[in-house]
Amino acid sequence: MDARTGLPVVGMVGAGQLARMTHQAAIALGQSLRVLAGSPEDGAALVAADVVVGDHTSYDDLAAFAAGCDVVTFDHEHVPNELVRKLAESGHTVYPSAQALRYAQDKRAMRERLAELGVPVPRWVPLAPGAAGLASLAAFGDEVGWPVVLKASRGGYDGKGVWVLPEAAAAASIVDAGIPLIVEERVALRRELSAVVARSPFGQGAAWPVVETVQENGICVRVLAPAPGLPAAVAEQAQSLALRLAGALGVVGVLAVELFETGAGLVVNELAMRPHNSGHWTIEGARTSQFEQHLRAVLDYPLGSTAPTAPAVAMANVLGGPPRPPAVDERVHHLMAGWPDVKIHLYGKAVRPGRKIGHVTALGADLATVTERATAAARYLAEGGPH
Amino acid sequence: MDARTGLPVVGMVGAGQLARMTHQAAIALGQSLRVLAGSPEDGAALVAADVVVGDHTSYDDLAAFAAGCDVVTFDHEHVPNELVRKLAESGHTVYPSAQALRYAQDKRAMRERLAELGVPVPRWVPLAPGAAGLASLAAFGDEVGWPVVLKASRGGYDGKGVWVLPEAAAAASIVDAGIPLIVEERVALRRELSAVVARSPFGQGAAWPVVETVQENGICVRVLAPAPGLPAAVAEQAQSLALRLAGALGVVGVLAVELFETGAGLVVNELAMRPHNSGHWTIEGARTSQFEQHLRAVLDYPLGSTAPTAPAVAMANVLGGPPRPPAVDERVHHLMAGWPDVKIHLYGKAVRPGRKIGHVTALGADLATVTERATAAARYLAEGGPH
Repeated sequence: MDARTGLPVVGMVGAGQLARMTHQAAIALGQSLRVLAGSPEDGAALVAADVVVGDHTSYDDLAAFAAGCDVVTFDHEHVPNELVRKLAESGHTVYPSAQALRYAQDKRAMRERLAELGVPVPRWVPLAPGAAGLASLAAFGDEVGWPVVLKASRGGYDGKGVWVLPEAAAAASIVDAGIPLIVEERVALRRELSAVVARSPFGQGAAWPVVETVQENGICVRVLAPAPGLPAAVAEQAQSLALRLAGALGVVGVLAVELFETGAGLVVNELAMRPHNSGHWTIEGARTSQFEQHLRAVLDYPLGSTAPTAPAVAMANVLGGPPRPPAVDERVHHLMAGWPDVKIHLYGKAVRPGRKIGHVTALGADLATVTERATAAARYLAEGGPH
Repeated sequence: MDARTGLPVVGMVGAGQLARMTHQAAIALGQSLRVLAGSPEDGAALVAADVVVGDHTSYDDLAAFAAGCDVVTFDHEHVPNELVRKLAESGHTVYPSAQALRYAQDKRAMRERLAELGVPVPRWVPLAPGAAGLASLAAFGDEVGWPVVLKASRGGYDGKGVWVLPEAAAAASIVDAGIPLIVEERVALRRELSAVVARSPFGQGAAWPVVETVQENGICVRVLAPAPGLPAAVAEQAQSLALRLAGALGVVGVLAVELFETGAGLVVNELAMRPHNSGHWTIEGARTSQFEQHLRAVLDYPLGSTAPTAPAVAMANVLGGPPRPPAVDERVHHLMAGWPDVKIHLYGKAVRPGRKIGHVTALGADLATVTERATAAARYLAEGGPH
């Protein structure tokens, strides 16, 4: 509890854009987010008052950070699970818990648990290291059909740690590296969806409308809310599935369930137990943003309304383009002139090719229009204009 | 310019709730607001990364603060005008300028200038100190009718520095104090309105819908957006007047024009050249909030869309009630449970009777409903429930 305000202190491990946007939400709730930053130049460290610089893989740093926090939560999945458990065992309130977080940290554990729960996942097998693994991979590919998708069980994100393989031989160097791997079928999908929900320790759940996520080169480039043309029954099924998973896995906070829409129904791709890129549209597009809701959930506050604020919302990521003029500030000028209705979110990062430096959101009556506006504005900011 | 991000640094003198909410808007624009705080416990100082503690009446403190800022602006009117001028003369970009700010700092100067511009203001006269002033006051009251309104020309806010006088004798001690005073007629008003606009150095202007402000004991308790039942022609007249004043007075940033609606038309009551309580509803209720717009304006960025996001918006101030349980955190719990759709904004202030500690906003289709919800939620937060 912050003695100056009588309001709680939430500590977030990690100080990237998710922490940065959570801090904005914390301010409205009378709080000031405490962040554990790897560097004082991390996006959230640039804007928050209460910044601790430390190593999220060091228990000493985590415990020092947690002292004085009412609850500790995360802006990424990279804190070793055993350290999360140890923090809780030492008396700190930590959400999501180590038990829950494991299913967002370890794809093998997640797929095993989802299979137990009867939740549809792609066909998959774990791979042993070395030649045995390569043989399993070959057999699996021959069974389900090539190409297959090889995934690092831990630590992947934004297309990193994921390899689409046309044949077993292509995996040799990866399998030899000795990291835990799984291989799964390449699902014949219509598109990708995301069901984002929140759950409090009390057990209250809340679901936002299901969205479509559009990927290019394994990176999410756009989110359309609500997912266009999604039958109401399928949307409800996705929301129910996400709420059920949040309960079954004991998630507290935001849970994003990434889904494949296939001819045979919905298949779970990935889980994230934190605010998620597919929920950024909620900042303006829903009565309660995923960032505020995550704070409410980990504090066991009642959850806020997830009602949309506009019929159609499109969020487009700003992925850094080649370094060339105009400079970012001039790009912001031009974006504002051309798109006075589009909302800008910049993360305090220098522009580097392919780096997610921000996002933009357009809201309106018609999804085609807002998609076009958000996409064009994001491209302008990323590339500095038509070239 | 912040070398880490390539984006500008805005310095705001004053670190109250206006700076606190401006910082939230700055974060989205990739910036980090620099604030000059009187105390490290000021509302914005609790949440911003870049806090300078200093005295806003000391030129040395102001100049040290301004160094490295792309532009300096204000969250209050209390910086002596000559120091604002000196900052600009020393090469700092300062918006609003000393010339413009004078009309928000000195009611006599404002009324004289507005009269020159042919803008309707209440009948008024300046008062000399001592017996001569008291005699003018008596003559003025006899002419326009009692009661009259005595105002300190400088430094008043939220009902402070304003006295409603039934007779001249009641003013004796105030006139004897020797502060510059004006006296004006008590306008027979239907209600109070506010026209909030923004203007950039380039000269671009933008106006939000005109709102009704509801006062109790001289303090704004509620704002209704748009002002219910206001004829479109009158709303347009108020917006045009505010935009014209912004241009004529050379305002850069947000300008709030507080208006009396009377049987004889609109009369200007007060001016504020900063984000204003009557514009807090724009955080959720307009595509661009007054806080983002103020940043855009002082940076000479193109202004954002002022389109409303809902047909009806009500903002209610949370004014601290008597100190009693439940504590503020428990009140927040109950507010969230009862009003999951209402947006909370707490300013990081300890509760004291009558102190403005936050505001809440309700949005919807119907002004009566959102007014009832915002009013009830604010009262709950202020008083801790029905007593």
